[in-house]
Amino acid sequence: MSEQVRVAVDAMGGDFAPAEPVKAAVEAVNASPAISVFLVGREQAVQEELGKYQYPQDRITVVDAQEVIETGEPPVHAIRAKKDSSLVVALTMVKKGEADAFVSSGSTGAVLVGGQLYAGKIKGVERAPLAPLIPTAKGVSLLIDCGANVDARPSHLIQFAKMGSIYMEHVVGIKNPRVALVNIGAEEEKGNALVKETYPQLKACQDINFVGSIEARDIPAGQADVIVCEAFVGNVILKLYEGLGATLISKIKKGMMTSLRSKLGALLVKPALKETLKDFDVTEYGGAPLLGLKGLVVKTHGSAKAVEIKNGILQCAQFKQADIIGKIQNHLMVTKKEDM
Amino acid sequence: MSEQVRVAVDAMGGDFAPAEPVKAAVEAVNASPAISVFLVGREQAVQEELGKYQYPQDRITVVDAQEVIETGEPPVHAIRAKKDSSLVVALTMVKKGEADAFVSSGSTGAVLVGGQLYAGKIKGVERAPLAPLIPTAKGVSLLIDCGANVDARPSHLIQFAKMGSIYMEHVVGIKNPRVALVNIGAEEEKGNALVKETYPQLKACQDINFVGSIEARDIPAGQADVIVCEAFVGNVILKLYEGLGATLISKIKKGMMTSLRSKLGALLVKPALKETLKDFDVTEYGGAPLLGLKGLVVKTHGSAKAVEIKNGILQCAQFKQADIIGKIQNHLMVTKKEDM
Repeated sequence: MSEQVRVAVDAMGGDFAPAEPVKAAVEAVNASPAISVFLVGREQAVQEELGKYQYPQDRITVVDAQEVIETGEPPVHAIRAKKDSSLVVALTMVKKGEADAFVSSGSTGAVLVGGQLYAGKIKGVERAPLAPLIPTAKGVSLLIDCGANVDARPSHLIQFAKMGSIYMEHVVGIKNPRVALVNIGAEEEKGNALVKETYPQLKACQDINFVGSIEARDIPAGQADVIVCEAFVGNVILKLYEGLGATLISKIKKGMMTSLRSKLGALLVKPALKETLKDFDVTEYGGAPLLGLKGLVVKTHGSAKAVEIKNGILQCAQFKQADIIGKIQNHLMVTKKEDM
Repeated sequence: MSEQVRVAVDAMGGDFAPAEPVKAAVEAVNASPAISVFLVGREQAVQEELGKYQYPQDRITVVDAQEVIETGEPPVHAIRAKKDSSLVVALTMVKKGEADAFVSSGSTGAVLVGGQLYAGKIKGVERAPLAPLIPTAKGVSLLIDCGANVDARPSHLIQFAKMGSIYMEHVVGIKNPRVALVNIGAEEEKGNALVKETYPQLKACQDINFVGSIEARDIPAGQADVIVCEAFVGNVILKLYEGLGATLISKIKKGMMTSLRSKLGALLVKPALKETLKDFDVTEYGGAPLLGLKGLVVKTHGSAKAVEIKNGILQCAQFKQADIIGKIQNHLMVTKKEDM
């Protein structure tokens, strides 16, 4: 057994806290001997939930934090004001080296701001992107950046491409991942000012497999593994994925209820359909890493259930064992040297 | 019978030219006595197609143009170089007042550039947006702008909101249409620099029904009628709509072929499913007006069939009868006066 990975889990974050984060912690330590968990939140409530399960007691520790940051709160203010919140207490543990990673289904803004403020960026990293995996016809792609920092510069996008490439290769296991830049046409001269300036710089990068521009139309088909864009566009893509999938599925279900014939058919296709749609549900891949930080921070979907949070926790082990932080650090340093 | 609307149709534009544009022209004049069509393109090829149909001969005229602008050509160059192209000849007719409108399934870039160059913008209009209708759970919404001019200013977005509002009210028939600004959160303080600057200005507009920000997730649900964004984001939304729909449908079809049970069910649900998916096919609503021009220019999808092109032609009649150009002109002038 290799070194333990110590994951601080936000027991108060998300729509189903503390029940689902607690259940996830139990499932994670039962699934992997390499993981130990700190459940950070209101001690009494967390212990009550924990009491329902069997688990190796030495690998789950409850850490008390009485405050909770709500989704609607302005992130910067919330983090400053609520020092005894599960989020701040857990991130402080990462900062002090008491925990290796932090997993939260809480407010995205607070996780992003808190992650940068407490864990801190790796030296040389200009901006820490939030990079969810999105389902495609061929598997998954990494959409980088979907964070809260918009209006990026070309140098940010270049770093996103490199960090995303490392992540897809060493955590998801895709050899020589194809990196593409989101654009409104395939030609090099197309795009807005940011894209036009970034394109030749990405093309010149020797250390990534840059395949050119990608139109949004080709993202779901899986035509690239690392989809690079600034956060406003990334957010639009991620959320449209969610919304369009949900609307289409509800239309299909309603459509199948229009005649006796189709109702009967619906009964028969239901199991197969359910499986397919699950594959394509963006919330199933809820564990989005915040890359470029000195500690591991994984944001799971606000409506995440135990299985997704557990996957987020297990991802931390992979992330640490593959030494992603070290790889990003070395990579950026090498690139810097090459540039000179 | 009111005054005739004379529509110049690009007989050489799109994947199925000249067959589908010619068929569309015949169907349009047969459908509405208010319409007459100029079919602009290679005369011999067009006449050959026309020979297949019955139609009132006095309402379809073939206008010869020997050149064709291809989809891959750089638009500005193509328009300058190919004076005898169907696109340039047809737009010149609009410019000279020989035709009221132009419908083309050809190169989007060429239609956009040509439309602005030949038809010219209405006085006071800063930028002419391309505004396709997209399907939603509740009907359709207008996505404005999806054109080729990116990096918009707030004043552009304000005009898009006003023009889109007029279009949805008087062409699509939605009373007091809800106007929303695409953003990455519902709160006023969220967004990139453009959105933050535009939001309070839209909020201050007395002449539109501004309902605030819309997240991409809520677009397919139909939470607004006029979806305002700059063209890069609009393009991403439009193309992701197409791509995600196509991928999801192909996954569902494949999923239903996994077992005997689901195969049988698939046979039964097929007709209902087909109807539903057609409702949600963005290419079905292929006729996107280029708003803010002195002539009517409608861009239909490159893969448009006769039915969509016909709808584009019929839209021109509605557009002219509702005097959208006059309304935009008056509206912008009133707004200017109010501002003083």
